Amino acid sequence: MDLGEIEARLATFVREREWEQFHTPENLAKSISIEAAELLEHFQWGDEPDLGELRNELADVITYCILLAKKYDWDISEIVSSKIAKNEAKYPVEKSKGNSKKYDRL
Amino acid sequence: MDLGEIEARLATFVREREWEQFHTPENLAKSISIEAAELLEHFQWGDEPDLGELRNELADVITYCILLAKKYDWDISEIVSSKIAKNEAKYPVEKSKGNSKKYDRL
Amino acid sequence: MDLGEIEARLATFVREREWEQFHTPENLAKSISIEAAELLEHFQWGDEPDLGELRNELADVITYCILLAKKYDWDISEIVSSKIAKNEAKYPVEKSKGNSKKYDRL
Amino acid sequence: MDLGEIEARLATFVREREWEQFHTPENLAKSISIEAAELLEHFQWGDEPDLGELRNELADVITYCILLAKKYDWDISEIVSSKIAKNEAKYPVEKSKGNSKKYDRL
Repeated sequence: MDLGEIEARLATFVREREWEQFHTPENLAKSISIEAAELLEHFQWGDEPDLGELRNELADVITYCILLAKKYDWDISEIVSSKIAKNEAKYPVEKSKGNSKKYDRL
Repeated sequence: MDLGEIEARLATFVREREWEQFHTPENLAKSISIEAAELLEHFQWGDEPDLGELRNELADVITYCILLAKKYDWDISEIVSSKIAKNEAKYPVEKSKGNSKKYDRL
Repeated sequence: MDLGEIEARLATFVREREWEQFHTPENLAKSISIEAAELLEHFQWGDEPDLGELRNELADVITYCILLAKKYDWDISEIVSSKIAKNEAKYPVEKSKGNSKKYDRL
Repeated sequence: MDLGEIEARLATFVREREWEQFHTPENLAKSISIEAAELLEHFQWGDEPDLGELRNELADVITYCILLAKKYDWDISEIVSSKIAKNEAKYPVEKSKGNSKKYDRL
């Protein structure tokens, strides 16, 4: 199943439940943060996470990301690809090799 | 460009900078939360977000999601698809139609 | 300076800038998440945080917490104190000693 | 009960459960983000939050803030007070009145 099919299946899931009304860009942005924190909770005390649960939480984050992208008709591959291009410029290899500093501190 | 190509390009970007050492699952999970909050910041006071910036922030969240999935060799389409199946069971159409309640309060 | 004086000074700061209009409970809740992530950013890659910056980020989180509590006329000491009482019941010493498990998994 | 008494009670609660070992600054920072998102969840779909639950979530965020401040022997009132002073300089009344823009965009 590719990303286009996933988007179609998600759209059906949402439409059948009449949930479009709740999915404003702002509510989706909040939802991404909320699900991201549920993902982080699996690493809260430094233990090994349960991978089955982790997988579900990651899927939730990505699901809301797909729904938000869809709101603006953004293609996931395209926006990630164009952000990588920006990061290649912000983080030149010679300056950032082996270095986790933020670009404005390089 | 499809998701597989994006993953390959991301992997190259990371390898050239020798950043694999920073990308533990826990650090990636923190990064997802951090970027999710930067996305949310565009909705902090209820104004219309700048779409160019929003697009970049969303790409950042997705990028870290892809990197985390890669750590466990999870296929993005597959984990989202199997989570949709779970949600179809948790949120039956007849109970959740037009209703934003969480499954444990339906 | 005690907490009551801090609250008074914050209220003046907000009133002088006519920012009450932005401080709905929801916007304050978003702001707490956003500032919490800025705090977390200092631990993103596992380095030692800059303590001066960390201190400022923590102050920002607490500031929005105080402002949200004020919206409902909640006394910070009282709500924390009553939550500790709840946690004492949820996490009995004998069960949770040396154990970071969540109460529903004890 | 004032903030000093709260801190003492919290310290006892933590010590009795031998939880100091889990409370590294980084784990506390993650915990603040996690609890902040649980607070935000009450505003996820724009409904009126349940105030009893909201109060508990806010108390959880503040609790972890107090524990993190304690790690560095920071006085809550003092760090908030000195951050307000910084914000007074960053957000001059004449420029920021009725305006929610960030200081670097004023």
